[in-house]
Amino acid sequence: MDLSVKILPATNDVHGGVIVDLKEPMDSEDFATLLRSSLLHWKQQGKDGVWIKLPIELVNLAETAVKEGFWYHHAEPNYLMLVYWIPKTGCTIPPNASHRVAVGAIVLNDKKEVLVVKEKRGGFHGIGVWKIPTGLVDAGEEIFEAAIREVKEETGIDTEFVEVLAFRHTHNSFFGKSDISFICMLCPLSFDIKKQELEIEAAQVFSFDRCRT
Amino acid sequence: MDLSVKILPATNDVHGGVIVDLKEPMDSEDFATLLRSSLLHWKQQGKDGVWIKLPIELVNLAETAVKEGFWYHHAEPNYLMLVYWIPKTGCTIPPNASHRVAVGAIVLNDKKEVLVVKEKRGGFHGIGVWKIPTGLVDAGEEIFEAAIREVKEETGIDTEFVEVLAFRHTHNSFFGKSDISFICMLCPLSFDIKKQELEIEAAQVFSFDRCRT
Repeated sequence: MDLSVKILPATNDVHGGVIVDLKEPMDSEDFATLLRSSLLHWKQQGKDGVWIKLPIELVNLAETAVKEGFWYHHAEPNYLMLVYWIPKTGCTIPPNASHRVAVGAIVLNDKKEVLVVKEKRGGFHGIGVWKIPTGLVDAGEEIFEAAIREVKEETGIDTEFVEVLAFRHTHNSFFGKSDISFICMLCPLSFDIKKQELEIEAAQVFSFDRCRT
Repeated sequence: MDLSVKILPATNDVHGGVIVDLKEPMDSEDFATLLRSSLLHWKQQGKDGVWIKLPIELVNLAETAVKEGFWYHHAEPNYLMLVYWIPKTGCTIPPNASHRVAVGAIVLNDKKEVLVVKEKRGGFHGIGVWKIPTGLVDAGEEIFEAAIREVKEETGIDTEFVEVLAFRHTHNSFFGKSDISFICMLCPLSFDIKKQELEIEAAQVFSFDRCRT
């Protein structure tokens, strides 16, 4: 059996690189041998970027990849993505996600009352501040959907999206990442407030004319 | 010496959790012992979220943390961030960055000519498409700065930012993340095109009236 031709299973990407999506457990020494012969093979093929996706169950292989010159691209709760650049020319591997996107919801009823909450956690906790419902837009979620969802989660109120009033770009908000927040105008479709217990201390409507912020 | 009180160096965060920012090399068995006694200690203290930041040089400790129940929060090229949630109640650890933010630059001169490029790499390569300069906004960078930088990098043209014309939210563009693209109007301050060699095949100005997209 010719071990020299054994390489890691890989698929080509559209940019001239290869993607290794490991799923089966493997001994780290076997992985080291396979990885070295694979890198040689891909170099001969003229490949550039090499991506290795390691499920968290295969964390034992991360050290081997790093020793072979790989670095981290990104991680999600259940996997780690490592990358390597074969050519001598400049690396054009795109960076990881750089932003969180947030929504703030102005829910205004026909009495010009706005829906406000007090938070149980975080920087606004314990200082008596009433604020509009806010939250993060999930990857894959539309901005208007996130605004409707956050209002429902925090206050139990059903709403209809009206428009985006403004957006704001802020920096260094979370592990060096930046935030873009969209302030959305929503129209209430229900009026019975049921606050969420885990994160919300209080929720009420407030005369808009009395609001300072 | 009472080994039971030895715990990992940690700082409190503002949300009731602790952050361990490891910097010194450590044997993985020593780390396992310290981590277990630390988790007991933090539990007794009523802490909730535990964050461990491992520089890539300490990748040997990642397996130990995962075995103790930690999972990945995010990774950047030079470090891996692992998290753990002590209470029985729902985990409120915020998710990792979910979006990339991009700019597209419409650079229009007083002859109603627009600056366009052909790309050497990626999905637009080899299909003859002329497009406006585009690129990713770095974390910490302003949208207008990114637009000016991308035009300069790709074409050598200096510009002044005028306004944001539109934005677009797209999904599942890069490892399940979403993109927000801001189309910016810019005014050229120089006119001598010097295209970037690595990623740009051609750059020119084009009568705006002839543009289809």
